[in-house]
Formats: sequence, structure tokens, C-alpha cells
Amino acid sequence: MTADHPADGFDETVHQRHRLGVMVVLAEAKRADFTYLKRVLDLTDGNLGRHLQVLEEAGLIELDKVFEQGKPRTWVTLTRQGRAALGRELDTMERLIRRVRDR
Amino acid sequence: MTADHPADGFDETVHQRHRLGVMVVLAEAKRADFTYLKRVLDLTDGNLGRHLQVLEEAGLIELDKVFEQGKPRTWVTLTRQGRAALGRELDTMERLIRRVRDR
Repeated sequence: MTADHPADGFDETVHQRHRLGVMVVLAEAKRADFTYLKRVLDLTDGNLGRHLQVLEEAGLIELDKVFEQGKPRTWVTLTRQGRAALGRELDTMERLIRRVRDR
Repeated sequence: MTADHPADGFDETVHQRHRLGVMVVLAEAKRADFTYLKRVLDLTDGNLGRHLQVLEEAGLIELDKVFEQGKPRTWVTLTRQGRAALGRELDTMERLIRRVRDR
């Protein structure tokens, strides 16, 4: 029975599963547009919009709103800070897995 | 760029970091009382109480309210279902780590 906090190091901004999904897709894709993210993550416009806002306000992603062939399109990219935050989340997951399984 | 959902398989009931913390402590300790969980996880009474209620309603933990030396004490244990759910959460974390890191 150990007394340190097993879920310290998880930051709610990144840990929330839909936001984590966004960040993983961006880590793989370099950039993705709103429509693609919505489809892959199976979210509504409003839901995805709110999660992107949280991530943008935390400096973890950047939104680039452009017009392409007369239509608005929102490109989303992970910032350097976002990539580091995703790395910390994965590190914390690894520690937690080891803590529970390798005893 | 792969099209499957990176955070599918995470269940919010278990994934939420404080509830995950509760389940990890219980996986290690077999049982823990309310006061211990509150201290280790650095939560208020109300906060911990709400998270325990969510976990209990999902059948993942059991609460045992007893009197010991005239004082009420709440013992918390992981159910078999709770242990399985924690296992699935850790499996999903492992897949996610491999997906991001082993490319």
C-alpha cells in the first residue's frame, strides 16, 4: 500500500478522452481539418468545437481558419507545447501501467 | 493517418483521473477507507463522495459502512467487475502508447 497519488501527472486538459483523441490524431497526421476530426472521433460540431477551444486556450493546438474553393475550412495542428503535453500524458500512463502490473 | 478512433475503449467512468486514482489504490490495497482515499487523492469529502457514488452505481466498487469504536467508517473495495474495468483501461492505455510511439 503506497501513499503517493496514482493519477497525479494526468492533466485534465489532455487526459479527457475526446481531447486525448484529438491530440493523438494530430500527432499522427501533422494537421487535420475540423470535418475529419469530427468524423474520426464521432463528435458533434458543438462538442468538438468546445474541446478544440479548451485545447487552443491551453496553447496545445492551433486553429487556422481558411477559405478553400469558397468554403470555410478549419485546419488544426498540434503546437510544440501540445506535443510535449501529449508526451507527458503517455509517460504518466506508462508509470501507472507499471505501478499496477509490475508488482 | 489512420482512421480508427484513438480513444475508443476508454470508458469515462474509469478514465476520469480521480476515479482512476481510486481504482488504482484499491487494486493495490484490497480495501481502503474513505479517510485514506481522501488523503492520498487529495480530494474534498464531497468530491470523493461523488466519485465513489459514480463507481458504486457502475458496480465497480463496493462501499461497506461500519461502526468502529463508536465512529462511522466507510470501507471501499474493488469488485471483480471493477478489476476487469481497470484492466481494460490499462489495455487501452497500452494500445494508445504503442500507437503513438511505435510508428
